[in-house]
Amino acid sequence: MSLLEKWAVFAARNMSEFRVVPVNLHDELVTQAYQARGYDEDESQVAAEVCRDATRHGIRTHNALKALHLDHLFGSAVGGCVPGVEVEVVNRRFKASEVWNANRKLGQAVAVAAIDRCIELADEYGVGQVSIDNAFHYLWGGGYVMKAAERGYIAYTNCTSTLAEVVPFGGKFPTLGTNPHSWGFPTQDANGFPIVIDWATSTVAMGRVQQLKREGKSLPPGAAVDEEGNETLDPNQVAALLPFGAHKGYGMALMNELVGGFIGGSLPTIRGREGAKTTSCFYFQVIHPDAWDSGASVGGGQMGNVKEVIDDILGHGNEGCLLPGQIEAGFRARTDAAGGLLFSDAELGEFKELADGLGIGGWDIENFGVEPA
Amino acid sequence: MSLLEKWAVFAARNMSEFRVVPVNLHDELVTQAYQARGYDEDESQVAAEVCRDATRHGIRTHNALKALHLDHLFGSAVGGCVPGVEVEVVNRRFKASEVWNANRKLGQAVAVAAIDRCIELADEYGVGQVSIDNAFHYLWGGGYVMKAAERGYIAYTNCTSTLAEVVPFGGKFPTLGTNPHSWGFPTQDANGFPIVIDWATSTVAMGRVQQLKREGKSLPPGAAVDEEGNETLDPNQVAALLPFGAHKGYGMALMNELVGGFIGGSLPTIRGREGAKTTSCFYFQVIHPDAWDSGASVGGGQMGNVKEVIDDILGHGNEGCLLPGQIEAGFRARTDAAGGLLFSDAELGEFKELADGLGIGGWDIENFGVEPA
Repeated sequence: MSLLEKWAVFAARNMSEFRVVPVNLHDELVTQAYQARGYDEDESQVAAEVCRDATRHGIRTHNALKALHLDHLFGSAVGGCVPGVEVEVVNRRFKASEVWNANRKLGQAVAVAAIDRCIELADEYGVGQVSIDNAFHYLWGGGYVMKAAERGYIAYTNCTSTLAEVVPFGGKFPTLGTNPHSWGFPTQDANGFPIVIDWATSTVAMGRVQQLKREGKSLPPGAAVDEEGNETLDPNQVAALLPFGAHKGYGMALMNELVGGFIGGSLPTIRGREGAKTTSCFYFQVIHPDAWDSGASVGGGQMGNVKEVIDDILGHGNEGCLLPGQIEAGFRARTDAAGGLLFSDAELGEFKELADGLGIGGWDIENFGVEPA
Repeated sequence: MSLLEKWAVFAARNMSEFRVVPVNLHDELVTQAYQARGYDEDESQVAAEVCRDATRHGIRTHNALKALHLDHLFGSAVGGCVPGVEVEVVNRRFKASEVWNANRKLGQAVAVAAIDRCIELADEYGVGQVSIDNAFHYLWGGGYVMKAAERGYIAYTNCTSTLAEVVPFGGKFPTLGTNPHSWGFPTQDANGFPIVIDWATSTVAMGRVQQLKREGKSLPPGAAVDEEGNETLDPNQVAALLPFGAHKGYGMALMNELVGGFIGGSLPTIRGREGAKTTSCFYFQVIHPDAWDSGASVGGGQMGNVKEVIDDILGHGNEGCLLPGQIEAGFRARTDAAGGLLFSDAELGEFKELADGLGIGGWDIENFGVEPA
């Protein structure tokens, strides 16, 4: 059994029962929901594709329901995101670099375009970067670098989160976003799927704190502080989050603020709230793998060498370890085997409401077959 | 009192008493020690400068004594490092990218040259990268990106460590190096010193485990495993280290192995030991800050915007927080005020031995004034 098959089994075993929704039904509903909010056809289709990809890989925190909810809270409903607006290139002084003013265009559309441009630059220069001011939430950063990796490129993105929820190491007041980083490596020919290292720089997300509160459970150590800035394990006492890994994760969270600061972005504590400038920044970078190749690999070329390195890491008794991106690859295998997107009954209830509001039929829960856990 | 002054005081208060060694005496001894091992004048001078910089910033784990010890264990004494050898550019297919075969040249000399070349590339392309195969230990990665930041650039480096001492998340056998990452940001005009985010991806270093063992103390949680791969707090039971921050730090440690794998580097478990190819890889990247600038900063230009972001993060009750690089900047201020490099009596004992071996006088401990803690 290959590692991928093993973890597909693992992912399947550890997930709940789902119902199977045809991809075209999902995409049609999501596209129409975005169009109803004023987004044009291209934007709405990209939005639906990005949501579909998140669901296909088991990223339930960034499915279409969450995307539309974020748009409602911070986006088109309140001016944080502007349907139909154009992106401007404001700086192309350097040959392998561009800076864009996104003008608060839909984040998913901006991110997809930025990766495309970075790939063009990487094809010529070996590395290309696009920095973006006045951005609106791009949802699942891992998805963009995963797609670039599937096309054969090494890709990286970070962004400043909408809200400042994280306390600097040693501090008491949240002045940092949960500021995620995402790296994708085109290792599919070595281990069956792209390695995607993708996480926020808080130990847990605020959504997880709410969940533990509802379940009456404790937080893990190093996850949150109370109003006084003292660490707490009690979700009811949480005033703000802590960076993962103490000062090391703090450095990773700070980095996105510095990148945003150099781009010209807003202050973390007014972002997503009020004041003169409240938008986020995105940063994208793509590298052509040939631009790293010393040609010194012994047998199997560059990818053969990558495979030998990965096999060495997962050998010697470490055969049960996961690679980053493996759970997502496993969930994708389960999704593809089911022949549609997998949603819980609760999620389908929300989709039904959304469909009813748009006058779209076909979303009665009994229409969808059950895919057992 | 500025933050820098405050932390200079902090650093001073928390450090031991030292003796003050004139810089030229230090550099002369270290240069001669390298020359005695066969390194040429240029290599030896760069080696001395890098060691001097580490000591000036309080990086006592990477001073000249450690550098020479590493060279003895893994370097010129055993063929891991080759004095006087030339670096070859083996891949310049892409305009903003180069790949070098270092041919096991002294790591410090290779790193300094790589940063210089990256800066030239960044001046033209906005971003430049140099990937290096067959490298030998460059010691303090933070020093190279700090120097680039002082010259006004954003810089990044990672490398694969000589030995595999770290267990992948969920594993039991060490198949990853302590694999450090170093980022430098030219923020000196905003906060008084370059922000330098610089750490290994293990929770603690193996040297720290040895120290705790000698002192009869426990390890912090999440730092190490025993022979069976079970986490242990007992330094006597330690068989291998754990990545910091669970799966997130594991991703950061894995990243260096992937970069090394794409370059064509060796397998982690044979690196620094035996087998066909046992060398490390380096990766360097430099970005021109203008290549990130949207021009949208309100007042004070790009650096004014960076300053506002940093002030926001360290405001709101977080005034006591450190910025990465601040302790090093504080120690440097103490060093410069003392008018020489600061060493402990134990370190001076080792320098005296080294000097005696080379027939160099002037290293009697009473020659050096005491700088109180």
